[in-house]
Amino acid sequence: MKFKEWEGFQPGEWVDEVDVRDFIQKNYTPYIGDDSFLKGPTENTNKLWAEIMELTKKEREAGGVLDVDDDVPSTITSHAAGYIKKELEKVVGLQTEKPFKRALMPWGGINMAVQANESYGFTVSDRVKEIFTKYRKTHNQGVFDAYTPDMRKIRKSHIVTGLPDTYGRGRIIGDYRRLALYGSDFLIEQKIKDATLYDGEMTEDKIKLREEISEQISALKDITKMASSYGFDVSKPAKNALEAFNFTYLAYLAAIKQNNGAAESFGRTATFLDIYIERDFKKGILTEEEAQELVDHLVMKLRIVKFARTPAYNQIFSGDPVWATESIGGIGLDGRTLVTKNCYRYIHTLSNMGPSPEPNLTILWSTNLPNNFKEFCSKYSIMFSSMQYENDDIMRTTHGDDYAIACCVSPMKVGKQMQFFGARTNLAKTLLYAINGGIDEISKEQITPIFEPVQTGDGPLDFAEVWKKLDNMMSWVADKYVNTLNVIHYMHDKYYYESAEMCFYDTEVHRFFATGIAGLSVVADSLSAIKYAKVYPVRDENGIVVSYKTEGDFPKYGNDDDRVDNLAKDIVKIFMNKVRSHKTYRGSEATMSVLTITSNVVYGKSTGDTPCGRRYPEAFAPGANPMHGRDCSGAVASLASVSKIPFKHAADGISNTFSVIPNALGKDEDMIIPGEIKISGKLPK
Amino acid sequence: MKFKEWEGFQPGEWVDEVDVRDFIQKNYTPYIGDDSFLKGPTENTNKLWAEIMELTKKEREAGGVLDVDDDVPSTITSHAAGYIKKELEKVVGLQTEKPFKRALMPWGGINMAVQANESYGFTVSDRVKEIFTKYRKTHNQGVFDAYTPDMRKIRKSHIVTGLPDTYGRGRIIGDYRRLALYGSDFLIEQKIKDATLYDGEMTEDKIKLREEISEQISALKDITKMASSYGFDVSKPAKNALEAFNFTYLAYLAAIKQNNGAAESFGRTATFLDIYIERDFKKGILTEEEAQELVDHLVMKLRIVKFARTPAYNQIFSGDPVWATESIGGIGLDGRTLVTKNCYRYIHTLSNMGPSPEPNLTILWSTNLPNNFKEFCSKYSIMFSSMQYENDDIMRTTHGDDYAIACCVSPMKVGKQMQFFGARTNLAKTLLYAINGGIDEISKEQITPIFEPVQTGDGPLDFAEVWKKLDNMMSWVADKYVNTLNVIHYMHDKYYYESAEMCFYDTEVHRFFATGIAGLSVVADSLSAIKYAKVYPVRDENGIVVSYKTEGDFPKYGNDDDRVDNLAKDIVKIFMNKVRSHKTYRGSEATMSVLTITSNVVYGKSTGDTPCGRRYPEAFAPGANPMHGRDCSGAVASLASVSKIPFKHAADGISNTFSVIPNALGKDEDMIIPGEIKISGKLPK
Repeated sequence: MKFKEWEGFQPGEWVDEVDVRDFIQKNYTPYIGDDSFLKGPTENTNKLWAEIMELTKKEREAGGVLDVDDDVPSTITSHAAGYIKKELEKVVGLQTEKPFKRALMPWGGINMAVQANESYGFTVSDRVKEIFTKYRKTHNQGVFDAYTPDMRKIRKSHIVTGLPDTYGRGRIIGDYRRLALYGSDFLIEQKIKDATLYDGEMTEDKIKLREEISEQISALKDITKMASSYGFDVSKPAKNALEAFNFTYLAYLAAIKQNNGAAESFGRTATFLDIYIERDFKKGILTEEEAQELVDHLVMKLRIVKFARTPAYNQIFSGDPVWATESIGGIGLDGRTLVTKNCYRYIHTLSNMGPSPEPNLTILWSTNLPNNFKEFCSKYSIMFSSMQYENDDIMRTTHGDDYAIACCVSPMKVGKQMQFFGARTNLAKTLLYAINGGIDEISKEQITPIFEPVQTGDGPLDFAEVWKKLDNMMSWVADKYVNTLNVIHYMHDKYYYESAEMCFYDTEVHRFFATGIAGLSVVADSLSAIKYAKVYPVRDENGIVVSYKTEGDFPKYGNDDDRVDNLAKDIVKIFMNKVRSHKTYRGSEATMSVLTITSNVVYGKSTGDTPCGRRYPEAFAPGANPMHGRDCSGAVASLASVSKIPFKHAADGISNTFSVIPNALGKDEDMIIPGEIKISGKLPK
Repeated sequence: MKFKEWEGFQPGEWVDEVDVRDFIQKNYTPYIGDDSFLKGPTENTNKLWAEIMELTKKEREAGGVLDVDDDVPSTITSHAAGYIKKELEKVVGLQTEKPFKRALMPWGGINMAVQANESYGFTVSDRVKEIFTKYRKTHNQGVFDAYTPDMRKIRKSHIVTGLPDTYGRGRIIGDYRRLALYGSDFLIEQKIKDATLYDGEMTEDKIKLREEISEQISALKDITKMASSYGFDVSKPAKNALEAFNFTYLAYLAAIKQNNGAAESFGRTATFLDIYIERDFKKGILTEEEAQELVDHLVMKLRIVKFARTPAYNQIFSGDPVWATESIGGIGLDGRTLVTKNCYRYIHTLSNMGPSPEPNLTILWSTNLPNNFKEFCSKYSIMFSSMQYENDDIMRTTHGDDYAIACCVSPMKVGKQMQFFGARTNLAKTLLYAINGGIDEISKEQITPIFEPVQTGDGPLDFAEVWKKLDNMMSWVADKYVNTLNVIHYMHDKYYYESAEMCFYDTEVHRFFATGIAGLSVVADSLSAIKYAKVYPVRDENGIVVSYKTEGDFPKYGNDDDRVDNLAKDIVKIFMNKVRSHKTYRGSEATMSVLTITSNVVYGKSTGDTPCGRRYPEAFAPGANPMHGRDCSGAVASLASVSKIPFKHAADGISNTFSVIPNALGKDEDMIIPGEIKISGKLPK
């Protein structure tokens, strides 16, 4: 073995080249038993958690933010080591030198950083303001320098929203396990080797990538320095579970010190770390109590990841979330379950420290999961309402068995695939634009070129006409949307490159260009109303359609009725194909999500009355959900409608927020968990 | 007329769109008279020049640098207005707030800036060091992040030298006249219009250009602010000669405040400004004395452009030059001479204030120039040895009649063509590498892949073998050279973009990729020796060829002997075609110069003995010159050899430094000025 730290592991291809999946496959111990082995919190865990609860209380009393740095832009090495209570902590590392002191992150946009601080009564030093206006250009400045007038318009009119043009794009998951398995020296060596592959004719793509490799190597060096301030030498592989937990977390910590992405997910670490725990068990140097303590302390750290964000951001994302998503479970390509004891331990943190929205514990659900684990998940879901479910049987076919979820629903192979986060287009508003020829129904401004509005006067809307015009309008929006994202991601790479995440990726990366849509059920129901009932436009004094009167009934999405469900299905496919028709930055693969777990309220506020009967400013349904109360044929019919949305045209994920009272899941003996549908159970914030 | 400031001018296409050439063509007054109208310096001019001489003396006494800024990185607006003696100055503006205080320019490379200051006993503040290491990446850092090991090697071994990877690339001439003719408001308006042309699919090229346009607009706004600190409102066109002189100079001043390029040339301004002088004459608001004073004061400013540079830089460029080249004269496409009275005035500054290497007064020579002007130029060349000559008859065919020379020999259409400066490859050293299979004759390191060395043992070198191996080696060097330049210019655009120059360019720019070669005459003579005499290699203990013994005589370049001149010609063409075979950054057009006016000494120091009999560390001949003393068939034969170098394969210019004693030019009545050959008469520094 190359490293003595690897003694006790089964070798494989992973010893010569970075290959964490191979390491896991060769070394993990599937667990099909029950949860009886689990242990409660240690005294240290209780004390530490009490400290955090106390700080949380103070933070709430202070209006949401306890402290923010005002003079030190956050980098991997910007701050001295910080602790909650040093002598109690098994897993160490904070974003700044003090718990609950948020970091200053001006790289995405200095105005955003200043606003974030000022809105909570803090300042940003003149020094930093000067640096980030005179000397260091920000991502935000770059983007606005290149935006066309149309791009500014679609942004301002909210037909496209949540664009990551003032903060980190997130949705990138470094394979933080690599630091534990290989140590930074080996990773640097591999990166230097990789660079030799990009020689010959120096195209811009190649130059860009060569520079990025250099940035990644610098990041690895900085991480080594930062870790050493916490007393860990991460230049070599981790030699036991304690180090493996700390190395993995410190790698993640570097990422969130450098980047304030919309979603900074943690990956798929439980089974990986279980291997170290099992080795320590065999050596007799670790007990179950100590193993659980490591997990509890790790999860505690993931619960207190915090960014300084503006109230506007918090409004879109309904709170202060990070989506430090951890993906748990699943089935391997060889048929063995990837559930280990450590998967139980991660979930058990909900019991040891109480429920929490972070980390976003996501079960990769398969019909083939061990029964004991299924029952355990169900039990904890019922008890804590803090778990999310995703369909491993579907995702495994496209992403293999070492993928993880970024944010809520975006699957990516860990360390191999990343995403250019694209927020989303409001398709309900797009329908209104189609009807009004591109005049915004709220501001009354012409946003698009002057398209022909519907020609049916005060008579009922004609489905064929509206459909054709919606098709036109989707073409226009998709064009502007994709090209806006091209600008954003070009500038993000240029001014806010995530070297601390990308250093834990393969050098040759597969990139997704992740677009999204909002308002799917509103559009489907509106089209259904126009097709199956009579919808009369209501016009203002200038002839602009501002509302609708509907006569007669019509099928509604969420009742397993193909007449309307097919409309939803078609819209997804058509819009996705329009996205696909455009050139995407860096040859990325276009994908789409139907996902708005939290921002559906905001979307409603920027969308006028819709033909389906929804009235401004009523909220949209979240994600791919049917509209509130319109799915009246029972839970199974509601889920069946959603399950028709074709995953291959929404490969970035389809979310369905499904709230049930515990009893609705049946009695213990005949507990039913749907196998095909994600059930989002995040705590309301 | 759109602006009242344009009253008195003949309209043309220039009134609707930026077109300075059209303005000149419609409005200038060719002058074919003699120099009898010229006036001596005013009292103010004498006083001001005395101040400058005093400062120059102090600077020399201080060791070469009088003062350097240590804390304010230079930008267009970084410094308050500065004067030599405010009440005396007709043309205002200094690079910093104090004359002879050099600006701090860390954008190209912070280490370079620190070294430059420290080598003259000055410091750079910790604040600036921190900003340009932690927050603001420099051009130099970007370049070295992307360099391959081969690129570092060719740089370190000096087979390629003078690469602009630590300072500004220069060789870009903003059309500074535009500020005077149009004012910044109109120019900004045009740039906003131009941006609308780059819509649709957002390719990286388009995004980059859109961002650059934004940067250009910001620069125009900053220039307006900077000019206003000197009391000039440049937002509108200049209304008289005083303003035209100041606006044009202030535009140039912005460029040299932002950029420390290897050559920051001024353009072709004399005839343009003559139009304003003539208009003022007609209005009776300006006298000849006042006109000359404006010219003297403008030229005075061009004489004191200074950058803080390292001794290493000064060594390569033999002094402290800026090449603030001003191109004078020439013939228009319609056959009229472009000589005006103001061309005389510019040259007359040599008399009014004494000779000076800056600005680099460059006569665009044509056989059709008015006789009076030819005689005037000859007289001033003889008197002051401070003028340079270039062949307008050749350059006009490719560049039209509104081009100017950047640096010494690089022609470009003003405001329409720019250059990616490429320094040069040492072809003499390339020949030695061919002989030794890529082992450096000085360091004895293998620099290239292991090519086969010459196989003739201690016997005489075989011409056919050497020629083939030189061809191979030129392929390898050209590949590495072009791709190194690709990296440099990508990073220059990324980290050190010249917005203050490019804002005075058309948005759609033609870019030259300007490579260069050094040691042409050494290679030609060496090949001739191998072919026509017997050249025996002298080997060191490891068999590396370190010197040569030559038996017999051979033709030498510089004697109008086709046997060797054709070798020089072929080498130029072959190397140029190898350069052409590669992809060049931003679709630029590959060109080549045969130009080393000042660095030939340094090249000699890094090149071992050569087969032609030159011994290490003997200097090369400059540019396309024959080697010293080998052109023994008279001046005409020497010039004839040089004139065989094909301009179309060395379109970036061919330089010949030609020193003659005044009498050699003949008596007044039969003065001969060669029509086809540039005679470089820059003062030794």
